[in-house]
Amino acid sequence: MKQLLLIGIGPGDPRQITFEAVDAMRRATVFFMIEKGGDKEELARMRKDVLARYLPHDGYRIVRVTDPCRDGSAQDYLSAVQDWHRARANLYRQVMEHELHEGDIGAFLLWGEPTLYDSTLRVLDLVREQGMALKLEVIPGISSVQALAARHCLTLNRIGEPLTVLPARRLAELETLDNVVVMLDGHATFAELSDPNLTIYWGAYLGTADEILVSGPLMEVKAQIVALRLEARRRKGWIMDTYLLRREG
Amino acid sequence: MKQLLLIGIGPGDPRQITFEAVDAMRRATVFFMIEKGGDKEELARMRKDVLARYLPHDGYRIVRVTDPCRDGSAQDYLSAVQDWHRARANLYRQVMEHELHEGDIGAFLLWGEPTLYDSTLRVLDLVREQGMALKLEVIPGISSVQALAARHCLTLNRIGEPLTVLPARRLAELETLDNVVVMLDGHATFAELSDPNLTIYWGAYLGTADEILVSGPLMEVKAQIVALRLEARRRKGWIMDTYLLRREG
Ligand SMILES: C[S@@+](CC[C@H](N)C(=O)[O-])C[C@H]1O[C@@H](n2cnc3c(N)ncnc32)[C@H](O)[C@@H]1O
Ligand SMILES: C[S@@+](CC[C@H](N)C(=O)[O-])C[C@H]1O[C@@H](n2cnc3c(N)ncnc32)[C@H](O)[C@@H]1O
Repeated sequence: MKQLLLIGIGPGDPRQITFEAVDAMRRATVFFMIEKGGDKEELARMRKDVLARYLPHDGYRIVRVTDPCRDGSAQDYLSAVQDWHRARANLYRQVMEHELHEGDIGAFLLWGEPTLYDSTLRVLDLVREQGMALKLEVIPGISSVQALAARHCLTLNRIGEPLTVLPARRLAELETLDNVVVMLDGHATFAELSDPNLTIYWGAYLGTADEILVSGPLMEVKAQIVALRLEARRRKGWIMDTYLLRREG
Repeated sequence: MKQLLLIGIGPGDPRQITFEAVDAMRRATVFFMIEKGGDKEELARMRKDVLARYLPHDGYRIVRVTDPCRDGSAQDYLSAVQDWHRARANLYRQVMEHELHEGDIGAFLLWGEPTLYDSTLRVLDLVREQGMALKLEVIPGISSVQALAARHCLTLNRIGEPLTVLPARRLAELETLDNVVVMLDGHATFAELSDPNLTIYWGAYLGTADEILVSGPLMEVKAQIVALRLEARRRKGWIMDTYLLRREG
């Protein structure tokens, strides 16, 4: 039985981590650092800073794992993602077989909240299906959605209304945009909307020193946000942003 | 200008509080403890325990505020809630006028995440509209939704799918129940559903010593959950529960 901790470490600010998460880090003996290649070295560095801040000793090992790439050209999104998860499950199983010994406790440090648009839990379910016995524990973390709401002093829902969180690729299907938080938007999908009653609350690099916030009527601020996104992505090599859309009146 | 901190303190476990939240508590000089009457004394005690744990000194004051009651018999839900918010805004403004002096920093300790189905921010917006200048800061906290997902080792969304969070009174309108988290359910609304493909992941008193978890096909476990809810409510005098519904296949 391999023991694993999935620890939410918040959206970027090391103070936005819970005491429970730090307790969990202190129990772990092996940290699996998943690297996705590309320009995300900054993210790997931020994870190491979190460890250095909260684990001043060196009673742990770091194991670097390079995630396989997803076939971005595939026609069928769902099956491309499933193939990718299977490839990652094979890899994670091998790495855990090799690195987690009797008495070890493995840990993944996950951005934001581990159960929101993060596939680690799903990949580990596949590892289980491949026959490896796992004992999992999930430690919640502050999500980028919460950081967005906090920085804009914004209640996510209006009185009695639902809140929807979705990936940008699903935005076009929505009929009502009352309280919609959009994640995983590589293409500034908001800029395609033209309803004059929409308000946007946008945030990038939330919780980090590079944080950018813009809010206002969508039609008035969308060009500004598109320009800020382009400029930031050029400067830093990558961007993480999220936003809430709300129809007024 | 009155300075106010809205601090998320998680769903019940004092370890599920962030370092940022504790920093904020240490800055505050006056804590407004909102009491709703009824059997929620236990919640007031849990808030005091949080302060005792993280603020070992006594450099702060506690001001108890008893919230007015909402007219539960009103026909129009939205306007009843709005009336109630206005009554609270009047009260909070008077209390702050009286209790927050030059150099004071006021704080509200809010369950879970301050921007999710919590009206404090909205009431303070009304206080502003009444002409009191406020400087607000929101500190995110772990929501009961996140505690639910963590304890069930559950990813809130499925691949590429939206997540909806809503109050129980809106459940009946939904056409698809793919990933729906229900809050504020006083009446076990899930028990009225009869779709055989629904799975429920239910949790009560999450993060506390009384935590109860049940999951499984809705039709198989709903009677058990209804009985557990009744029994727990009888024993403790109050219940807080939340659940995720998901249609399989
Ligand atoms: C794979 S999802 C992971 C979400 C994460 N589990 C969470 O709870 O925030 C990545 C998406 O989260 C959002 N995101 C994550 N961190 C962010 C940050 N610091 N600022 C803005 N958006 C962020 C972006 O929408 C990004 O495309
Ligand atoms: C007024 S809302 C506040 C929600 C809170 N802001 C949060 O983020 O969890 C109250 C509802 O939250 C849910 N809730 C809050 N704390 C809970 C807990 N410890 N266990 C289960 N459900 C909880 C219940 O559905 C309850 O009816």
